[in-house]
Amino acid sequence: MSKLDVKFAGLGAENAPGQEVRQNSEDLKSIMRGDVLPGTPVDFSHGDVDAFAPTPGARDAWQDGYDVGGAQAYTEYRGDADIRAQVAGDLAAFTCAPVDPVDELIITPGTQGALFLALGSVVDQGTKVAIMEPDYFANCKLVRFFGGEIVPIPLTYQGSAEENGPDLAALEAAFSKGVEVCVFSTPNNPTGLVFSQHAITRIAELAAAHNVTLIVDQLYSRLLYSGETYTHLRACAVRPDKLVTIMGPSKTESLSGFRLGVAFGSASLIERMEKLQAIVSLRAAGYSQAALRTWFREPDGWMAQRIAQHEAIRDDLLMIFRKAGFPTATTQAGSYVFPELPDLAVPPETFARLLRVQAGVTVTPGSEFAPHTANSIRLNFSQDHEAAVAAAHRIVEMVERYRA
Amino acid sequence: MSKLDVKFAGLGAENAPGQEVRQNSEDLKSIMRGDVLPGTPVDFSHGDVDAFAPTPGARDAWQDGYDVGGAQAYTEYRGDADIRAQVAGDLAAFTCAPVDPVDELIITPGTQGALFLALGSVVDQGTKVAIMEPDYFANCKLVRFFGGEIVPIPLTYQGSAEENGPDLAALEAAFSKGVEVCVFSTPNNPTGLVFSQHAITRIAELAAAHNVTLIVDQLYSRLLYSGETYTHLRACAVRPDKLVTIMGPSKTESLSGFRLGVAFGSASLIERMEKLQAIVSLRAAGYSQAALRTWFREPDGWMAQRIAQHEAIRDDLLMIFRKAGFPTATTQAGSYVFPELPDLAVPPETFARLLRVQAGVTVTPGSEFAPHTANSIRLNFSQDHEAAVAAAHRIVEMVERYRA
Repeated sequence: MSKLDVKFAGLGAENAPGQEVRQNSEDLKSIMRGDVLPGTPVDFSHGDVDAFAPTPGARDAWQDGYDVGGAQAYTEYRGDADIRAQVAGDLAAFTCAPVDPVDELIITPGTQGALFLALGSVVDQGTKVAIMEPDYFANCKLVRFFGGEIVPIPLTYQGSAEENGPDLAALEAAFSKGVEVCVFSTPNNPTGLVFSQHAITRIAELAAAHNVTLIVDQLYSRLLYSGETYTHLRACAVRPDKLVTIMGPSKTESLSGFRLGVAFGSASLIERMEKLQAIVSLRAAGYSQAALRTWFREPDGWMAQRIAQHEAIRDDLLMIFRKAGFPTATTQAGSYVFPELPDLAVPPETFARLLRVQAGVTVTPGSEFAPHTANSIRLNFSQDHEAAVAAAHRIVEMVERYRA
Repeated sequence: MSKLDVKFAGLGAENAPGQEVRQNSEDLKSIMRGDVLPGTPVDFSHGDVDAFAPTPGARDAWQDGYDVGGAQAYTEYRGDADIRAQVAGDLAAFTCAPVDPVDELIITPGTQGALFLALGSVVDQGTKVAIMEPDYFANCKLVRFFGGEIVPIPLTYQGSAEENGPDLAALEAAFSKGVEVCVFSTPNNPTGLVFSQHAITRIAELAAAHNVTLIVDQLYSRLLYSGETYTHLRACAVRPDKLVTIMGPSKTESLSGFRLGVAFGSASLIERMEKLQAIVSLRAAGYSQAALRTWFREPDGWMAQRIAQHEAIRDDLLMIFRKAGFPTATTQAGSYVFPELPDLAVPPETFARLLRVQAGVTVTPGSEFAPHTANSIRLNFSQDHEAAVAAAHRIVEMVERYRA
């Protein structure tokens, strides 16, 4: 294999959410146990924007953008100035710290685009990057693509509130040994863990002390369940000079089909991200950008209702999986659950494929998120409530069939 | 400067089209000659989608895509299968060679996205890449970003039909000396040169003989002027195993605000591009993809009229610049002219800024395209006809003011 073959083998996307359609299932027939389980198919690999529709007004906002014409089609690479001004104000209020719309914010093609640009701006051959395990699968792939070296930091998520969180001693040791960049999601993808105020404060202090660049993925921070509190790292008293926060309207607001995200923080990093954007795809689709005018401006009560609906689904799934004996952490924010399955007679990735073929249930294998979470599966429960509950029962039945 | 500082200095976007708004003009006041020249401002850095509106039906197609819902929001990373099938068929007919919609085509966020993914799939540290001079400015930036080494190939464009084209002897020498990738645009950006059948055939043969990957940017190939012929490299009898052709509806069809492009060719390269897309921005915006349903399906006569309108503007601009004594090649396809200005009393980039501030005319400095074309300026003449002609006259007047 050439160097490039190896590089792209590391980007394997076969088990990535949404790509299951490209899998061939012929080889599964000889190992199948039992018949097909009937029921509405559910694709837990991503949220269902038919069950939870896009923000009211987003469709009209796009049309208004189209009708503006050339000025909306050809924005600055970092996005339309007027939209940036609105969004920067709302993000400042939400995260409790100011955002300069001219120099400190860039509109990106989805939060995936924001992550790519942020890591591409600070990771080069040999750059050491601290990554939580488990965390969003693309983080590792991005670091490897840019030639960086991954320094894994254990994340506890199945313990008590005091036990849960990143291993701060390991983080300090890593920062002391030449780590230059740290990227993580809070709420954590795939576990739904919200980093505590203590952890966030300490990460900020350590990064400041060791001159580490922090990239904080807060994609799901608006979908916060009752009784939980959220700490914005960018509002900490002590924080590093180089900090980028990433958010977007693809999840809670169901605007994924517009491909929109934002990154905001240190002007020097935002400038680099824009330079990279200029050669990656120029800008987030101009007309799509106009849909950001609905962001943080949802109708009264809309967000509260959306959170309540997700919380109800979460509670049902937690009950089903825990009753079946699968250790499952309580999702504090976002729409992921990450149940740990017992040992099975087939490899976890094969089980995920069997789930799809026999039970009409698509999940993301835990091996995408950390080497030691291969027995877990990630479900995005932003789905039709009834269909999701029925599908969860089918997962339990399939586990019983294939139990080792 | 750190290694990353140097890397991003090489991505300078200050003079890139669309970024002029971020320039400060205070420093120009002391060197200005004469007053402001009145007239409708014209931004020649890109086409004016208000003067040449998007394809009829594109707005409705987007709405239909939105109304499809989740299936359109979350397509495969390479794009919606049904849309790929339609587009592959039309591209096969247009380029005179088959395209497999399952394995040989990817929908990308604009043709910029296609170029990024294609070069990212084949260029790594030390990869030698042949690039025409002049050619689209992002080609060099992309190669540098991925760590590749640029091998420049001279392109003649101001000679006779027989003289014009790439230096094929230089290309053969480069291919013999370890070049692994060659990327070029035809019609050429910025000159409007269409590579001859002889040149295309020879490039294909040389690449096949030396196992060179070819990336051919045919973005403007539909806007072909009367009397010109176009040769599709992918239809050549002898061609390399690794070939990607890039097109998109952003220019002739004015769909830039949707951010859509396509790359089609060798399945192994398309697969790599999709893996890269999965970490770059997941997919072209789902709802935007639906606008591709209008591509190659424009109303009868629409394309012929669009070409005729552009040809009329081209003819007027050529006359104005040639009458002023600026050597200017005849645009064979696409909407760029690339007049060579005489020596001026100010550096060319400064003159471009003065043009904007004093004459309301935005152009792209020739230094973006090749080191030796700094005295030229690129104009995208997909503009309101009358305004473009008036602006061209203002350029001539500004040249007279600042002549060395």
